[in-house]
Amino acid sequence: MIQHAAFPVEPWSIRETELDLDTLAQTESVFALSNGHLGWRGNLDEGEPHGLPGSYLNGLYELRPLPYAEPAYGLPESGQTMINVMNGKLIRLFVDDEPFDVRYGELRSHERVLDFRAGTLRRRAEWVSPTGRAVRVTSTRLVSFTQRAVAAICYEVEPACAEARITVQSALAANEPSPASDADPRVAAVLSNPLVSEKQEMYENAVMLIHRTNHSGLRVGAAMDHIIEGPQGVQAEPRIFEDGGHVAVTAAVRPGERLRLIKFVAYGWSGARSLPAIRAQVWAGLSAARQTSWEGLLAEQRAFLDEFWDSADVMVEGDTEVQQAVRFGLFHVLQAGARGEKRAIPAKGLTGPGYDGHAFWDTEVYVLPLLTLTVPDAAANALLWRHSTLQKAAERAAQLGLKGAAFPWRTIVGEEASGYWPAGTAAFHVNAGVADAAVRYVDATGDESFHRGPGMDLLCQTARLWRSLGHHNPGGQFHIDGVTGPDEYSAVADDNVYTNLMAQRNLIAAAEAADQYPGRARELGIDSEEIASWRDAAEKIAIPFDPALGVHCQADKFTQHQSWDFDGTAPEQYPLLLNFPYFDLYRKQVVKQADLVLAMYMCGIGFTAEQKARNFEYYERLTVRDSSLSACMQAVIAAEVGHLNLAYDYLAEAALIDLRDTEHNTRDGLHIASLAGAWIALVGGFGGMRQVGSKLAFAPSLPDGLNRLAFTIGFRGRRLRVEVTRSSAKYVLADGDPLEITHHGDRLTVTVGEAQQRPIPAIAPRPAPSQPAGRAPVHRRPVATST
Amino acid sequence: MIQHAAFPVEPWSIRETELDLDTLAQTESVFALSNGHLGWRGNLDEGEPHGLPGSYLNGLYELRPLPYAEPAYGLPESGQTMINVMNGKLIRLFVDDEPFDVRYGELRSHERVLDFRAGTLRRRAEWVSPTGRAVRVTSTRLVSFTQRAVAAICYEVEPACAEARITVQSALAANEPSPASDADPRVAAVLSNPLVSEKQEMYENAVMLIHRTNHSGLRVGAAMDHIIEGPQGVQAEPRIFEDGGHVAVTAAVRPGERLRLIKFVAYGWSGARSLPAIRAQVWAGLSAARQTSWEGLLAEQRAFLDEFWDSADVMVEGDTEVQQAVRFGLFHVLQAGARGEKRAIPAKGLTGPGYDGHAFWDTEVYVLPLLTLTVPDAAANALLWRHSTLQKAAERAAQLGLKGAAFPWRTIVGEEASGYWPAGTAAFHVNAGVADAAVRYVDATGDESFHRGPGMDLLCQTARLWRSLGHHNPGGQFHIDGVTGPDEYSAVADDNVYTNLMAQRNLIAAAEAADQYPGRARELGIDSEEIASWRDAAEKIAIPFDPALGVHCQADKFTQHQSWDFDGTAPEQYPLLLNFPYFDLYRKQVVKQADLVLAMYMCGIGFTAEQKARNFEYYERLTVRDSSLSACMQAVIAAEVGHLNLAYDYLAEAALIDLRDTEHNTRDGLHIASLAGAWIALVGGFGGMRQVGSKLAFAPSLPDGLNRLAFTIGFRGRRLRVEVTRSSAKYVLADGDPLEITHHGDRLTVTVGEAQQRPIPAIAPRPAPSQPAGRAPVHRRPVATST
Repeated sequence: MIQHAAFPVEPWSIRETELDLDTLAQTESVFALSNGHLGWRGNLDEGEPHGLPGSYLNGLYELRPLPYAEPAYGLPESGQTMINVMNGKLIRLFVDDEPFDVRYGELRSHERVLDFRAGTLRRRAEWVSPTGRAVRVTSTRLVSFTQRAVAAICYEVEPACAEARITVQSALAANEPSPASDADPRVAAVLSNPLVSEKQEMYENAVMLIHRTNHSGLRVGAAMDHIIEGPQGVQAEPRIFEDGGHVAVTAAVRPGERLRLIKFVAYGWSGARSLPAIRAQVWAGLSAARQTSWEGLLAEQRAFLDEFWDSADVMVEGDTEVQQAVRFGLFHVLQAGARGEKRAIPAKGLTGPGYDGHAFWDTEVYVLPLLTLTVPDAAANALLWRHSTLQKAAERAAQLGLKGAAFPWRTIVGEEASGYWPAGTAAFHVNAGVADAAVRYVDATGDESFHRGPGMDLLCQTARLWRSLGHHNPGGQFHIDGVTGPDEYSAVADDNVYTNLMAQRNLIAAAEAADQYPGRARELGIDSEEIASWRDAAEKIAIPFDPALGVHCQADKFTQHQSWDFDGTAPEQYPLLLNFPYFDLYRKQVVKQADLVLAMYMCGIGFTAEQKARNFEYYERLTVRDSSLSACMQAVIAAEVGHLNLAYDYLAEAALIDLRDTEHNTRDGLHIASLAGAWIALVGGFGGMRQVGSKLAFAPSLPDGLNRLAFTIGFRGRRLRVEVTRSSAKYVLADGDPLEITHHGDRLTVTVGEAQQRPIPAIAPRPAPSQPAGRAPVHRRPVATST
Repeated sequence: MIQHAAFPVEPWSIRETELDLDTLAQTESVFALSNGHLGWRGNLDEGEPHGLPGSYLNGLYELRPLPYAEPAYGLPESGQTMINVMNGKLIRLFVDDEPFDVRYGELRSHERVLDFRAGTLRRRAEWVSPTGRAVRVTSTRLVSFTQRAVAAICYEVEPACAEARITVQSALAANEPSPASDADPRVAAVLSNPLVSEKQEMYENAVMLIHRTNHSGLRVGAAMDHIIEGPQGVQAEPRIFEDGGHVAVTAAVRPGERLRLIKFVAYGWSGARSLPAIRAQVWAGLSAARQTSWEGLLAEQRAFLDEFWDSADVMVEGDTEVQQAVRFGLFHVLQAGARGEKRAIPAKGLTGPGYDGHAFWDTEVYVLPLLTLTVPDAAANALLWRHSTLQKAAERAAQLGLKGAAFPWRTIVGEEASGYWPAGTAAFHVNAGVADAAVRYVDATGDESFHRGPGMDLLCQTARLWRSLGHHNPGGQFHIDGVTGPDEYSAVADDNVYTNLMAQRNLIAAAEAADQYPGRARELGIDSEEIASWRDAAEKIAIPFDPALGVHCQADKFTQHQSWDFDGTAPEQYPLLLNFPYFDLYRKQVVKQADLVLAMYMCGIGFTAEQKARNFEYYERLTVRDSSLSACMQAVIAAEVGHLNLAYDYLAEAALIDLRDTEHNTRDGLHIASLAGAWIALVGGFGGMRQVGSKLAFAPSLPDGLNRLAFTIGFRGRRLRVEVTRSSAKYVLADGDPLEITHHGDRLTVTVGEAQQRPIPAIAPRPAPSQPAGRAPVHRRPVATST
């Protein structure tokens, strides 16, 4: 748990006022910088102490064997895993030969600030060496949003009292030693020495390294160059080694003087290009960065972020912590997706090695809806990444005996990397999530060329999958048997409601696209029989409902199973998956994460208001939230069915997951989907926003803890600002043609210059639902506003 | 596939008239000798060529790590695996320095005979060395039933034409090189060099070795001694090496003379005893064997087998192949179980490394019923082995969150060794199989001390398991959800009929035992509330039935699932598990092996005659028999419901599984359960025998291919002989008090000296059921009788 005291609440930054070595790994994730292509964990400049050193390039992976006690058909023999590439963050400092190490000497002050508007990580330290030399160190680090291969650091040292001989050794290091992984399956396997050296070069104050991976055969280059400012007599010399190189800058510095180093780092990698090509690429990256200059990079970064906040900011009044946390989340979601450019958005972004750097279904279902309405190009690029893996997905479907395409449960470049068959061969809902994200993107942007091209490929190949996966029973209903839904405490069940409703939507969207683009349909071999079979399957799809209880079954028979013995489960037995066998979790009524509740958000029109309320209350009693994907969706539906204060508790749980390290694994990277989920909880929950085809609906309503909620979204080329208070909502169109929306079911048209304001109807109170014993969310007390 | 031509049909032996190197591994399994404690594969005396060298001691295992791509709670970290111990079979021959190797020179003749009455493997070869020296070699090998640590070989060489210098080098070798395993999960992991040398000794013509295993920490000793007879001047000298030793015997032998070597081998092992103790044990074994002499061992062996065949023989007229095969099966089942003495009976006996030498549920359900009625002491010992693992089973149950005891899916010494959770944590039916075998044993023998002691422990701890595993639904029915039944093409389903009926019987038997032995019940902490709860669960247990189809559901909802596309499945796609993913097999109507059909045999009173017929026909269409456990049970029920000729086909499939190598894995060891199943098919199928509590029922009826079936069983201290012809059945009591039985439902009492003969009623013909496309059994044409 990260000590809250170390993080004073500020609206536009995370400030850490003292260094806590016990939570170093967690703060490295929190302070990570990334642009979606290149990621640097918030490791200290001097490298050690560290929690987990990490520098990542999106898509760069090594293969590791996947072992099985008992092999089976269809299980992958090897999996991709993200590797720690050359560390360009390293700047070691020596004060009269004494290495700057916060564990020795005296650390008089230490502050780190992650600035959401500047896009930088600033650090300030005052340190007295064991021999009594005092220095002030400041560094500012950025990973550029505008030059995606580039990162830079401005590092300054000045003696505090007496002259000191200062050496600043700026390094680029491959194959950094990493702490060993533990046995928790969610912690990524640590691969030691994944990089094989191919070339090192040095020129003046620059060093370049080229390495390749052992098994995946990828080549990666990194180079650094420096601008040095210091007192007379400052000297620099580069050195190279097999696994790295450094530039050492030395000067005798007097009080009032300072030694300043601007470090530019550029990366490049490829599975196809030659060594000279990679070398050229990284040197070119460096040249561009130098030409831009440190100040230029800072200015570009701020301009990029100004544009982002203008399009995406969410303002919350009444809870400064949530205000900070939601901006922290938005900033990290942007960092995860901004410049991925046809690479996956991993579950942890590029903030840590958790889950082997894999992307899962929650990218499409949790992250892309946010990006679609704020940075639509990033959403398009993420969808184009999926599209680029379509051939692999088609091969996987064939291997599983199915038609169309079956996207993987977890992957970096498209091949299935899950060695657990109930997920890796049976969790087909990932395909409907991909289709849904494509439809949402098209509906929100009107991007017809995407729709007709890659969008239609995605929709139709996944529709084919569903059609071949399901079957009609003698009564003519269409069933999808033996699949795993989102809830990981159930598996291989029949007619999972979320899966079936999402498949239904997928089948209909594919049929509509085929009707809309008949030429492309012909190209894809889709005839009217196939379209009809999609529509028929969608129409006849089975949605299990328990009439005795008046609730939907998460999957067929779910409500007939034994309930988990929550009263007999001790607090330390959570997460249950670490303390109980799969078979027992699977056969009982216990829910790891929103599943039926997620269905009610994603496919709300499949449920009446009364069903939503009853379902929510039924599943709330069974849901233990052992998954970080749960709280935000519970927040949305809790808000919809009128449990606003419970929704507020869940919003906080989702938003603070990493700032509070509530899952105890922030060290391995941030929970990007949960951070995106905090936005969903606010916009979809208290804003009541739903994307219904190419229309937007709102049903805002605030919990007791919030006085005001304001957010901006982009929709079909316009920018819409929504401001919600406890009594009314105001809709303001910033640009573009008039937009028709609904407010609590009432249609209204918003026009530029003519804000629409509507009162918020009172909500009929319902008795508060209960959670499993000991699993109620922390009740959130409103925090005094100070912004 | 073993060439049939090489095995002329003989009633009391398997004779191989020429050596086929391509099927060497298969014949090594077929010709394996064992007494249930010590097993020697039928490797050639000279060691090479070989398929798989193998010498095994029951219970001696090494630990091997069980790896997982994604670890989970409750999966074992390491598994036991049977190892190849010191090979005492080795006798190398050199003719004028030319090694006898059947791949070189000229093999003029080669014959091997496995003799079911002598209990020996005889070999006769005439060989001409590459340099033209001709020799006749004969060897006879036995693994003693009467001295369980002892094996012996009589090896003779004589020159055929000219004098030759003959060296016979008799060896004892540890850590023999073994061919690498393939990726088939059913082939055991090959562990290279599992033994670490601790001591070698030699005295005169004897050599002794002591080794220990690397990880499991077990110590194993083996020693050999020799009696040498040869022409004048014969010399012997022993040598020892780190991994073995040999005694080399050399003589110049003229035509008409011979060199004869009697080799005695003794083994011993322990996890507790010291090196001197093991050394003493193996030397003592050798002394006893020498004292008995070769002729004495042969005589003891024959006497043991005479007694066995007198108690257990099955005579079949009309099909000499089946006659041979059923005796082959009885002989190997005896070899697997005779002297196990509180060790497991592995799925492959001690005939090969398949399945890592593990025992599964089929020991209790397929093998023990045969032993109970023929060699009841062996059955008792196998049950005492289970009982000896009760503490481990109790710990496993606790680990799985359950009460009582949960026996492992696969094991050597009691710990779960399955790394596949749907089996290793969910296939609970193994526990009911153990309980059923205990009840059958008690009912058949009246062994009260077993019943009151270990039997009651087994019954009550498994009853506790079932009670804690199931739950009552709101309607009061008792359900056992999410478990895996016998059919391995389904998993983790609700209310598997076989499991529930067997659990019902288990619960009732435990309640009855607790009533019968109230003192022991008190010791076990069983009160009247617990007994009542067992009876209640048994009474209310759910048995899913599909009223629309008029058949039972293998498990709940089974009949509503999509049927497997049998017409679209190519012959080379069987076994399906190697070509289709689990999730798809599990969610469709396709049956690997008898499951509901097995339930109708094991728990026949749970079904009406009409239900049995309809169920059989329904499941027959879905059963692909990818398991060797299937055909025999299909035979029994096919016979019961009147498909006698189909039953005959299945009988042959079960009986000939290894002689024909129909599963293509006889190389890894024999299918002991299927061989026992052939007996069940004859006695339970065409004899119509059922054990109903402490009573026997018969309903004999022969297929067209058989003229007569006669078998002997032991029951409650008597020996009953049953002779069935096409028209009538005769019941003859050999000894003991009168016995009440039924014949086709009619009660009759058989008394010593007063045989009872009854006509066989005609069976109403039913239309022949169909099998999945391409999966009909081979239609068996009757083979002319020549016995």
